[in-house]
Amino acid sequence: MRSALVIPAAGQGERLGAGRPKAFVDIAGECLLVHAVRGAVASGVVDTIVVAAPDGYADFVNEVLDGAGRPLSVVIGGSSRRASVAAALGALPAGVDTVLVHDAARCLTPPDVFRAVSAGLAAGADAVIPAIPVADTIKDVSGDVVTRTLDRAALRAIQTPQGFRRDVLLRAHAETTGEASDDASMVERLGYKVHVVPGHREAFKITDPMGLMLAEAVLAERGSRA
Amino acid sequence: MRSALVIPAAGQGERLGAGRPKAFVDIAGECLLVHAVRGAVASGVVDTIVVAAPDGYADFVNEVLDGAGRPLSVVIGGSSRRASVAAALGALPAGVDTVLVHDAARCLTPPDVFRAVSAGLAAGADAVIPAIPVADTIKDVSGDVVTRTLDRAALRAIQTPQGFRRDVLLRAHAETTGEASDDASMVERLGYKVHVVPGHREAFKITDPMGLMLAEAVLAERGSRA
Repeated sequence: MRSALVIPAAGQGERLGAGRPKAFVDIAGECLLVHAVRGAVASGVVDTIVVAAPDGYADFVNEVLDGAGRPLSVVIGGSSRRASVAAALGALPAGVDTVLVHDAARCLTPPDVFRAVSAGLAAGADAVIPAIPVADTIKDVSGDVVTRTLDRAALRAIQTPQGFRRDVLLRAHAETTGEASDDASMVERLGYKVHVVPGHREAFKITDPMGLMLAEAVLAERGSRA
Repeated sequence: MRSALVIPAAGQGERLGAGRPKAFVDIAGECLLVHAVRGAVASGVVDTIVVAAPDGYADFVNEVLDGAGRPLSVVIGGSSRRASVAAALGALPAGVDTVLVHDAARCLTPPDVFRAVSAGLAAGADAVIPAIPVADTIKDVSGDVVTRTLDRAALRAIQTPQGFRRDVLLRAHAETTGEASDDASMVERLGYKVHVVPGHREAFKITDPMGLMLAEAVLAERGSRA
């Protein structure tokens, strides 16, 4: 099994307020993209890397990922997450048979999560995604009024990397339309079975300054444990 | 309008691994319960406080909340969150007409959230709860297989304080049975309209060591801003 890590890193991430695309914001002196790739490569299950970068960032990506130790392709991403993943899929090297799509914003995802997703694919699954229980009560709201409280026991918060057989993900991108909440939802629409493996609290998505603060704290804690 | 803050603080919180009930774990030198009451009182919308404490903790609660500047009643909580809220409701002082039920684990909830909930009640709502958009994709899972991806746009992550007209919350506790995901869901079951106001990222629930780490970081940031 030969596996590609695909990172859509073209998003602007306005809520971070950092004045640059989200994947290029620094925590502890390195940008989210570098942290994300480091965790992925440390898992031992990534053979090649494809990054969809914002226009004007390709050289920078090549430079900061030069030491990642894996072949790297950089493409220019699109105006949506979906378009960026599609652009990256168009640049997959020959011989790749599984794809791990990973958000740069989940840059502290532990290597074990990558291994669990990869193991699910190696066992024959078409699609494998990491998930954790939902901490808050979740309700449906219409306007400012609650319409329904969901049964929390069955709910899972979905993370990345999301792993797919290459042909399955390519088919999902070719045969579905519209924005998707995540890559797995496109695959679900085609009727494929999507398997869930345990995610990790540290695979949280950085979306705002509080997320950056938490990431700094987690890295400091990892440093003090090392 | 005379408002009581009700805090169910009898939960064990095993996931924190602190060897004591969750509300009595310290961050920055004070326990979650003290932080929670401080934020609530600072809002200016709390007239009296009722805490449901674990057996053996009543004296401690009276001691640490002595300086809260509001009349305090301490009752012994039950074996579930619902039972603890019910015990606290049984000790509401006369003259209280609205109740704010608040999780000690959401101890950094900003005063503005209390004010928004209180303002909704003052405007005539039966029930008002704070909520924020959901950051992750949420799916329904059966076993280890995804059964459905929810429409994230309509979903909200629910926080506390949850505010109610006293008679509405008492009726909900009297006329519904079983555990409830939150207090509002009991009120919803009776057909009352539950209104949503903006919550806040810092009103997150501390459930594990990473939550404690984030709380410490938020407090440090608040200190550096002060």
